Amino acid sequence: MRVVVVGAGFSGLAAAAALCRGGARVLVLEARERVGGRVATRRLADGTALDLGAQWIDPTQDRMAALVAEHGLTTFPSAAHGRPAVRWDGRLRETPPESVRQTVNLLDDLAAGVDPAAPWRAARADEWDRLTLGGWLSTTAPDPVTARYVGRLIAGGLLAVDPDEVSLLQVLFYLRSGGGSGSLLGMAGGAQQDRLVGGPALLAERMAAALPSGTVRSGAPVRAVHQDGHGVVAHTDEGAYRAEAVVVAVAPALAGRIAYAPALPALRDALTQRMPMGSALKLHAVYPTPFWRADGWSGVTTSADGPLTETVENSTPGSTRAVLTAFSYGRQARDLRRLSPGRRRAEVLAALVELVGPAAAGPDDLVEHDWSADEWTRGCFCGALTPGSWRDHGPELRRPVGRVHWAGTETATRWAGYLEGAVLAGERAAAEVLARPTA
Amino acid sequence: MRVVVVGAGFSGLAAAAALCRGGARVLVLEARERVGGRVATRRLADGTALDLGAQWIDPTQDRMAALVAEHGLTTFPSAAHGRPAVRWDGRLRETPPESVRQTVNLLDDLAAGVDPAAPWRAARADEWDRLTLGGWLSTTAPDPVTARYVGRLIAGGLLAVDPDEVSLLQVLFYLRSGGGSGSLLGMAGGAQQDRLVGGPALLAERMAAALPSGTVRSGAPVRAVHQDGHGVVAHTDEGAYRAEAVVVAVAPALAGRIAYAPALPALRDALTQRMPMGSALKLHAVYPTPFWRADGWSGVTTSADGPLTETVENSTPGSTRAVLTAFSYGRQARDLRRLSPGRRRAEVLAALVELVGPAAAGPDDLVEHDWSADEWTRGCFCGALTPGSWRDHGPELRRPVGRVHWAGTETATRWAGYLEGAVLAGERAAAEVLARPTA
Repeated sequence: MRVVVVGAGFSGLAAAAALCRGGARVLVLEARERVGGRVATRRLADGTALDLGAQWIDPTQDRMAALVAEHGLTTFPSAAHGRPAVRWDGRLRETPPESVRQTVNLLDDLAAGVDPAAPWRAARADEWDRLTLGGWLSTTAPDPVTARYVGRLIAGGLLAVDPDEVSLLQVLFYLRSGGGSGSLLGMAGGAQQDRLVGGPALLAERMAAALPSGTVRSGAPVRAVHQDGHGVVAHTDEGAYRAEAVVVAVAPALAGRIAYAPALPALRDALTQRMPMGSALKLHAVYPTPFWRADGWSGVTTSADGPLTETVENSTPGSTRAVLTAFSYGRQARDLRRLSPGRRRAEVLAALVELVGPAAAGPDDLVEHDWSADEWTRGCFCGALTPGSWRDHGPELRRPVGRVHWAGTETATRWAGYLEGAVLAGERAAAEVLARPTA
Repeated sequence: MRVVVVGAGFSGLAAAAALCRGGARVLVLEARERVGGRVATRRLADGTALDLGAQWIDPTQDRMAALVAEHGLTTFPSAAHGRPAVRWDGRLRETPPESVRQTVNLLDDLAAGVDPAAPWRAARADEWDRLTLGGWLSTTAPDPVTARYVGRLIAGGLLAVDPDEVSLLQVLFYLRSGGGSGSLLGMAGGAQQDRLVGGPALLAERMAAALPSGTVRSGAPVRAVHQDGHGVVAHTDEGAYRAEAVVVAVAPALAGRIAYAPALPALRDALTQRMPMGSALKLHAVYPTPFWRADGWSGVTTSADGPLTETVENSTPGSTRAVLTAFSYGRQARDLRRLSPGRRRAEVLAALVELVGPAAAGPDDLVEHDWSADEWTRGCFCGALTPGSWRDHGPELRRPVGRVHWAGTETATRWAGYLEGAVLAGERAAAEVLARPTA
């Protein structure tokens, strides 16, 4: 069987590998000149490596662990020196007040009633999907600072969206899909536990290199997918590729920009209109030393206010310099995006000073990458269904349309939005294709 | 100046006419083989004409009135014989209870504080945009039937969406843009007052015919728009067209499917991911006679339950047969869409029987058109920003990107979502282009 895979991110690469194992002849068409999707590494002149996109691995992410081992790579634990800090009501403290734990626990309790394979079946799904997280917090959190902090931490930190643009149901789905807030927000023992030696882009490159020679064609955006009773043809600017099935391994928002013939069914097309990509800015401040450690701080901070929601030490063992990585989400990220580069730098550094001290004001380098401006990603971390959309459009996430199957981390039921979800989704789509009745 | 207009709906045609008046040489590229966009007329064998899309004109829609006169067409008043009916809690009544008027009045009162040119500037904009209409109704309407009825009437009847998928702010913007609920929901004196003799598609055809010969090229979907310092090129499957400016006169959701080079700025692209098209099914039941009139009813009904939210007599003077047109919106429309044609017909006819009596069970014809399945429209009546999106993405609606200007009824500030809004938006975009500094 001949199969075309659209997109050489982790989902497309995992689909391709599984299809090859199943005996298919596979062609992966990738828009960019590189593989890896929402993963990229930038190396500074002195060798300091910065992970511009997805970068962490959780100890329960079995498929990622297996891929790391299979491709001869290793992981190292994220930096963990000293105490975290929380900026709360204009002051630093070591932990957020108890009201935060209580509010997040409430979310986890509700999430326990959501099946990540069918969130729309939850008993209170309609009620939860008509309520934004921001709206829920405004009546549930015991005070406005707690509401703001939890909104930034959960909507921002997990989905890179504003609490006002995402429904409670979408948040509950995501919490459940990633094993709950403890798992998702944690460093050691959680989703930010480990990093890849050499960076995650290296794993994508090895996954691509392990495919039969010529499998991945880069610089080849798929513009159209035409199918009929005999097969399917993927059209690029340079040529057309015939196959028995196609796996579209890009986010729904991007999948909707491909021209399909026949046109997609109404409900599937409507899904692609209702799953916008998140809005994250990830900024790397590079310093001569991890100065924050001197005061006993870890560099891990979260904030109830200001343009940055969180920071984390992101230095790489063996590097001569220290990296503090900051995240801005949703409306804060969009506000930063509107500024001139100079103004943005000034605002970011002022916020860093508030979070880790005056030495943050003068980094050697400040490196940003805006995935929302990147034509072939258009937002990070992932797509999230808009409020009120789960009931009618959720069931379309994984439903094949003829010979077209859907992968991408947005279609995962476990670790959706993560590299693990991308791999699981790619392998699920590959299994669907291999199970197709052969004509 | 040479200008390319993308889309020959009312907005694109109005833009082209205004550009020609301003001395520009214009080419309109239209994906379909016809003009008119979300307007189409179907003629049955006996001559009965059915307006499948937009069809009504309000007495305050000055530009539409002027176009009708300019192109030698005339209007006729919508049928108005007898009493309307409301299906409420399983029974028919002549008017909804007072609770409906009170709840809708509350919406109008709030809408008075919204500037349709900048809804995000309303004092309570953030609060209103994080709240869905469904959520607002659940705490504001005095009882669940009133909440359901008003949600169906306002979110459904005006935007063809579910109350749970649209924010209060989006609804308030729309109410204000169309002059309030009395204007928007009214037959005589309101937005449903008049119809076009010959159907609105005829006006679109005359608008196209009045342009210089060869101005409109049909069957030419624009796939890409490339701009540089010297000009802009619109690419179709058949050829590329160079111009000094482009007016994109399709809804944002469709505008996002064009490939731009350079890629659109992050916030403009994000807008196209956050303005899904509504979900309406418009069904025309054709009968030998307007049997409902015999009992003193008008055929105008609204319903708090069931798959159909409203019906209206839609017969055309001089036709030998009577037409009852029914509308289904949001989740009800999506539920109908999932059924087989036979099941859908049975459900629709059963609902019609409940609304206008047993004679509704046996129409001569039942004609449906699903704009959500139509590749070049992808939903009706219009696009609506998703909850939480107005503050950051509303300002991008009309902001040009280099040589690319944006039209389409979604960009209007008056009668957004209507033919009038389409024309106003097209003329506004044309004025922007004509005011460009010439290189």
